[in-house]
Amino acid sequence: MPIATIEWKNNCIRIINQTKLPLKLEHLDCRNIKTIWKAIKELQVRGAPAIGIAGALGVILGIKDFPGQDIEGFKKKLDQTVKYLASSRPTAVNLFWALERMKRRAYSNLNLSLPKIKELLLDEALKILEEDKSICRKMADYGAKLIHDGDTCLTVCNAGALATADYGTALGVFYRAKEKGRVFKVFACETRPLLQGARLTSWELKEHNIDVTLIADNTAGYLMKEGKIDKVFAGADRVAANGDTANKIGTFNLALLSHYHQIPFYIVAPSSTFDLKLKSGKSIPIEHRKPQEVICLQSKKVAHSQVKVYNPAFDVTLHKFIRAFVTEKGLIKPPFAKNIPNVIR
Amino acid sequence: MPIATIEWKNNCIRIINQTKLPLKLEHLDCRNIKTIWKAIKELQVRGAPAIGIAGALGVILGIKDFPGQDIEGFKKKLDQTVKYLASSRPTAVNLFWALERMKRRAYSNLNLSLPKIKELLLDEALKILEEDKSICRKMADYGAKLIHDGDTCLTVCNAGALATADYGTALGVFYRAKEKGRVFKVFACETRPLLQGARLTSWELKEHNIDVTLIADNTAGYLMKEGKIDKVFAGADRVAANGDTANKIGTFNLALLSHYHQIPFYIVAPSSTFDLKLKSGKSIPIEHRKPQEVICLQSKKVAHSQVKVYNPAFDVTLHKFIRAFVTEKGLIKPPFAKNIPNVIR
Repeated sequence: MPIATIEWKNNCIRIINQTKLPLKLEHLDCRNIKTIWKAIKELQVRGAPAIGIAGALGVILGIKDFPGQDIEGFKKKLDQTVKYLASSRPTAVNLFWALERMKRRAYSNLNLSLPKIKELLLDEALKILEEDKSICRKMADYGAKLIHDGDTCLTVCNAGALATADYGTALGVFYRAKEKGRVFKVFACETRPLLQGARLTSWELKEHNIDVTLIADNTAGYLMKEGKIDKVFAGADRVAANGDTANKIGTFNLALLSHYHQIPFYIVAPSSTFDLKLKSGKSIPIEHRKPQEVICLQSKKVAHSQVKVYNPAFDVTLHKFIRAFVTEKGLIKPPFAKNIPNVIR
Repeated sequence: MPIATIEWKNNCIRIINQTKLPLKLEHLDCRNIKTIWKAIKELQVRGAPAIGIAGALGVILGIKDFPGQDIEGFKKKLDQTVKYLASSRPTAVNLFWALERMKRRAYSNLNLSLPKIKELLLDEALKILEEDKSICRKMADYGAKLIHDGDTCLTVCNAGALATADYGTALGVFYRAKEKGRVFKVFACETRPLLQGARLTSWELKEHNIDVTLIADNTAGYLMKEGKIDKVFAGADRVAANGDTANKIGTFNLALLSHYHQIPFYIVAPSSTFDLKLKSGKSIPIEHRKPQEVICLQSKKVAHSQVKVYNPAFDVTLHKFIRAFVTEKGLIKPPFAKNIPNVIR
């Protein structure tokens, strides 16, 4: 049973504060919309599917205290709430997808009483959370078939239980393969600047008794050249209709290295991560984050505090470097421009 | 005038303790051979040319107190000293090159008195140091011609004043271009695990008023894809006869990314970094370092202390990804297997 990364408990959103891991396993109860907005913004909760869930539950925090029966006022409040939550992070499309679902649920039930609408919204948010669990399991089932005894896999960032409501995306594949008795190893890229690989993935996999070895991101090419990597599995924050994929900064480097070394490179992502409105990766907005993430490391300064820093949080991997997508609806293989819209309706 | 990274002063080797930079500019006086061995091993002094100089001066510390006139005993002491210093770090060939030069100077003068031989050895070590200065200037002269107004360059690790007795190798090119009035920018990869780019390069370039921006290593591919990098300059720890080049881990990734984006990738290195005995990069020994370098960051833990770590300090860039070598003898272009032995005799 994976760790509960995000839950709805006693009328608040309970998350694991991931900025404290692995040194401290600390929960944070978000009781109002500002706290959950900040939690998303500052990566206390992170990972595309988990951000989607946090957004959906955030809507509940935003509207639950709306008084009276004024439907027009409520609509305004809901729109404000959604807009505010959408401003927390720009790249992972799951956030916008979940907020859109919440809005749709409310707007298609405006004939009901406000308490009833609020009830339906909570139902929708919890449905998104519950669905994510079963989606994780399905992706893991499809993905585990790609792992064979003796394989050594590489992963980047954290696409695990800490990024979802259950098993994770890329790491779910490893959990399922392990359950099926496969014998394999995993290398985890530490994933600078925020070290999700070092702090979260290596901790999570170790907790689940998966044979994991941590590397500096720079070591990936060396490992591949030495013939030590058989497959790469990564998550995603947004996939365009042609298969171009935004994911944690450095993913593109790994994909190109994999391509050169003829190592299959898989993206594991639920259909909520696909943004069919975007033709290619060129239109995916890339979040740029503050210099301190590179200059400091958990409050320890590692460079001159006045140095200029360029700190995009994501990059876009061209679809031609991706062997296949593992989704809850099965594997999607090239040609992606044809197959993605067929599978992800 | 660049900072004095390594000097011979009052019968000891004075180095800048680079593990303290950029937070503290602290000198360390190495008065005996164990201290300089440890300084090399622990990267208090680092960079292939500086390691060569440290090795040569280390020989002086090793033999200076050898008493009496026993030539056979002295030869034994010298051999032991050289062997001990050679055990500090395995990859940068400049160390072995410098130690070999020291040995040769002694062995070709065994007819002289011991005080005289010791004098000649000090002369040789200081010559290696002085030569490095003029070599830096020559490389910088050749390299600066490659930089044009408006260029944006990328570099990795620290191949600067802190890696040599003067200008540096790759960074020397930038210093010279700046002196010539060229207007250009530099991006510096932070260079995990030991952050030589963040701690040393960004500090050094900023001190010399060069427009420098620090990035996480993962950001290099994104920058190139955005068309933001015109040229890449890196140093080297050992170059094989065919041009395969060992340098800081992650250099190979950068070279492949450059190749894919058709960005010229230059290695700046003195002839002492070329090891013509090695046909290809396959035989370059790669140093593996302790897990703590990845798990901790300047004593701050960033991952679970029990996690397995794989931590090679260098990788090998295949010669086909290198546009040219900038040496003190001029540019070396492909075919390297023919041109390297012609230039580096």
